Amino acid sequence: MKSDIDQLMQVRNIDALLVTGPGQHNPAMVYLTGIASLTQADLIKRRGEAPVLFHHSMERDEAAKSGLKTKCFDDYQPQELIKQAGGDLIEARVMRYQKMLEEMDITNGRVALYGKVDAGEAFATFDGIQKAIPALEFIGEADDSLLLQAMLTKDEDEVERIRRMGQITVEVVARTAEYLTSHAVCKDILVKKNGQPLTIGDVKSQINLWLAERGAENPEGMTFSIARDAAVPHSSGNSDDVLQLGKTIVYDIYPCEAGGGYYYDLTRTWCLGYAPDQVFALYEDVHAVFETIIAELKPGVHCPEYQKRACDLFEERGHPTVRSNPTTEVGYVHRLGHGVGLNIHERPWFGANAKEDDNVQPGSVFTIEPGLYYPDKGMGVRLEDTVWVRPDGKIEALAEYPLDLVLPVGKK
Amino acid sequence: MKSDIDQLMQVRNIDALLVTGPGQHNPAMVYLTGIASLTQADLIKRRGEAPVLFHHSMERDEAAKSGLKTKCFDDYQPQELIKQAGGDLIEARVMRYQKMLEEMDITNGRVALYGKVDAGEAFATFDGIQKAIPALEFIGEADDSLLLQAMLTKDEDEVERIRRMGQITVEVVARTAEYLTSHAVCKDILVKKNGQPLTIGDVKSQINLWLAERGAENPEGMTFSIARDAAVPHSSGNSDDVLQLGKTIVYDIYPCEAGGGYYYDLTRTWCLGYAPDQVFALYEDVHAVFETIIAELKPGVHCPEYQKRACDLFEERGHPTVRSNPTTEVGYVHRLGHGVGLNIHERPWFGANAKEDDNVQPGSVFTIEPGLYYPDKGMGVRLEDTVWVRPDGKIEALAEYPLDLVLPVGKK
Repeated sequence: MKSDIDQLMQVRNIDALLVTGPGQHNPAMVYLTGIASLTQADLIKRRGEAPVLFHHSMERDEAAKSGLKTKCFDDYQPQELIKQAGGDLIEARVMRYQKMLEEMDITNGRVALYGKVDAGEAFATFDGIQKAIPALEFIGEADDSLLLQAMLTKDEDEVERIRRMGQITVEVVARTAEYLTSHAVCKDILVKKNGQPLTIGDVKSQINLWLAERGAENPEGMTFSIARDAAVPHSSGNSDDVLQLGKTIVYDIYPCEAGGGYYYDLTRTWCLGYAPDQVFALYEDVHAVFETIIAELKPGVHCPEYQKRACDLFEERGHPTVRSNPTTEVGYVHRLGHGVGLNIHERPWFGANAKEDDNVQPGSVFTIEPGLYYPDKGMGVRLEDTVWVRPDGKIEALAEYPLDLVLPVGKK
Repeated sequence: MKSDIDQLMQVRNIDALLVTGPGQHNPAMVYLTGIASLTQADLIKRRGEAPVLFHHSMERDEAAKSGLKTKCFDDYQPQELIKQAGGDLIEARVMRYQKMLEEMDITNGRVALYGKVDAGEAFATFDGIQKAIPALEFIGEADDSLLLQAMLTKDEDEVERIRRMGQITVEVVARTAEYLTSHAVCKDILVKKNGQPLTIGDVKSQINLWLAERGAENPEGMTFSIARDAAVPHSSGNSDDVLQLGKTIVYDIYPCEAGGGYYYDLTRTWCLGYAPDQVFALYEDVHAVFETIIAELKPGVHCPEYQKRACDLFEERGHPTVRSNPTTEVGYVHRLGHGVGLNIHERPWFGANAKEDDNVQPGSVFTIEPGLYYPDKGMGVRLEDTVWVRPDGKIEALAEYPLDLVLPVGKK
């Protein structure tokens, strides 16, 4: 939780955090400032002290909304620094950071870096500062960063925000089902009033609209894919594809709060009209694993244990898995789940990148999403909910939506 | 232009480009791959050769859509690398990059880095690779990067895409004007049918909806601010504010293609019902400068010259400017314009960061956006169009919308 940050800094021997980049769609910054309309800002926090938010002069009112102590970049005379640096913009930036860090008395020790920015700019800037202040050590982490560790458990306010996104998500999924089933069928495909086939592009446009109506964004896109595409887990679906009866549709939707806030993540698999036996059998296997895993979740268990368990269950049912063959593109080909928060994928991890404390634990919010994929048979099935581990250790899906496979069509 | 990249690499003595990060909302990646639904990818291009796109196994179909040569991360056995690195995820990543680079025979020379990623991850990863392959030098650039130089001029296809976003933008602005003027007035503020005041939050929700209906996104948000907020150029507006007659509304809208493609940027200033003399005088000053600058734009002129010209014109009219006082928050407080493309702000630059070739030139697309701000008087005015310099050197606004200040209300 956010309130753990100082303690985590202590444990990891981190003296300061430096978060850079925009105030929106930038999880580390949003975590510490809220969603602020800042094009470029820096937040620096010394261990045990309140952070300072550095901002452009024109964005002072937006910066102030964060409630944090703020300081304007203009105080460092950026134009003068560019002159002093002979027009070298990276050098000018290094000089500005030097002043900011010195002012905050951060001239040695370990500084952890965060924030979505250009890779080249980040590398050159922090390499430059490190050379200018050799007693300073910049720490860059991957999936196991201090902030992701703090985010590993959510406080009540965060859970409520994720729940609200869950509510929006299931409203939009229900709206999508209604929309599909309201279409007429002609020669086994859904058709519009003008007789033209309904396409995945049409459906996706509607989904975007329903999300916008509810004030949500989907910066990471969505998956709405049918038949062979549904059998490639991260194929997002082909806009020109038509909606044919009896084919699996994998619908994976992961919207976030406007400006890049908290996400929700949900997947359903649908067959329009009917499910062929082969598809139904595949669905039954996924559904059984989904229900079994959800029922078995309990605090204290290391998340990768559930990945093993899912592999056990799928292998018992005769499917290849990523455990039996790490590069398989057939059967169960991915991880069972991932944490959800300000990042669509965050801790706890269920795979090889998991750390010791990637456990099911009170306050964690994560997906469970078993799936089976058979590209050559043109079918794929995935079911996914986002669940929260309550303070009492009980597991709660943060939004409810039926798992049914078949959507009835053509009844009118 | 994109076709200049190899030549720019030659001039800058860059042997390879390495672009990292997602396939969406990541301008450098989108520039070279199109908008692809990739959660994490790497693109490596040697000078004079076609790029290779490295992707996750599950995203192979999305990667293939780019039409580029592709290679799967799984080929480097990521789980094995994590083991070899003793669980150090950054180290495992460094090892993967080493293999990828060696395979492409990039073991010395200068490699320019791009792509939106976590600052800490980027710093630690590329610092690690540089240490592992000392003959390799990673180059990070700021606003003057090689790719931004390529983007400085647009080809026909890019201009058409920006024009299409311009068309969407003016449709939405027209829709916004209709929406506002369709409301009743009660005690000098706009009211809804239920008698409640219309708020800026209401208006912004509608704008988001109209953008979504047209398949556009606005990941950078928008400005719709009134009165004092309108006098703080980058205040995005307060959702709870009501729409009072006779106050300036600054409406700055900058949507992009879905998935993080090309942007458009436009600002209008409106007064509902009437404009007080003081406001009208301010508008007249901005309007005159806007028209003068647009008329004076011609190929070969350094963009910062127009910033100087705008300062001359505003000072002649008695306003403080950023030239007379670099930290002024009153009068003309920002830059005259900026390039628009896959980044909402890109070259040509109009400020101190401008390079020699930040000229008005055929193929460049940029905004012209003079403004005047008086927070204490509760008023601000800005007018902005996105213009293209045609191959024949003529200046063309890529979308047309009236500049009128007053929106008539309460006529029903």
